[in-house]
Amino acid sequence: MTTEKIAGVSVATRANVYFDGKCVSHGITYPDGTQKSVGVVLPATLTFGTGAPEIMECVAGSCEYRLAGSDAWLAAGPGDKFSIPANSSFDIRVAEAFHYICHYG
Amino acid sequence: MTTEKIAGVSVATRANVYFDGKCVSHGITYPDGTQKSVGVVLPATLTFGTGAPEIMECVAGSCEYRLAGSDAWLAAGPGDKFSIPANSSFDIRVAEAFHYICHYG
Repeated sequence: MTTEKIAGVSVATRANVYFDGKCVSHGITYPDGTQKSVGVVLPATLTFGTGAPEIMECVAGSCEYRLAGSDAWLAAGPGDKFSIPANSSFDIRVAEAFHYICHYG
Repeated sequence: MTTEKIAGVSVATRANVYFDGKCVSHGITYPDGTQKSVGVVLPATLTFGTGAPEIMECVAGSCEYRLAGSDAWLAAGPGDKFSIPANSSFDIRVAEAFHYICHYG
């Protein structure tokens, strides 16, 4: 099961645009103040850094990702999640589109 | 004043990707069932068709737009809105980014 909708949240109307638009997300805030984002990575190979730890949840499409310090590219598809430690990074390569929810902390 | 956040809504986690990613939006649904979307148009000149009438509200960045049947390019910036009739189209050209809320009906 993938998470198709997130209800009862506040959405930032201004998008976050990364890597010349290869990644676009919108921030969401829950009533308790928790912040997440919903976004998409388009065909590209990119490296993202983290501040807070992140959990990337695939809701549609797919990607391959490689955590900092690892040689292994791992696949993620709908319903899969992967975790990235704080102050780290990961490489991601996307062939079509990778739709995600990013959970922080 | 621009609309920075939209509270109390449900957000579709899967993005709508148009024109190879030159336009990316996420659908939102209000508790009464009203649907809108929040999105961004990246640097490009594009033509969008409408089914239902639309009101485009600029929340950040800017664009120039030209409604079907018009020769005039008009500018829209933060806080500006423009309306497109049903079953029509408009051209939009964006130099940096155009962040918007699309209201239907």
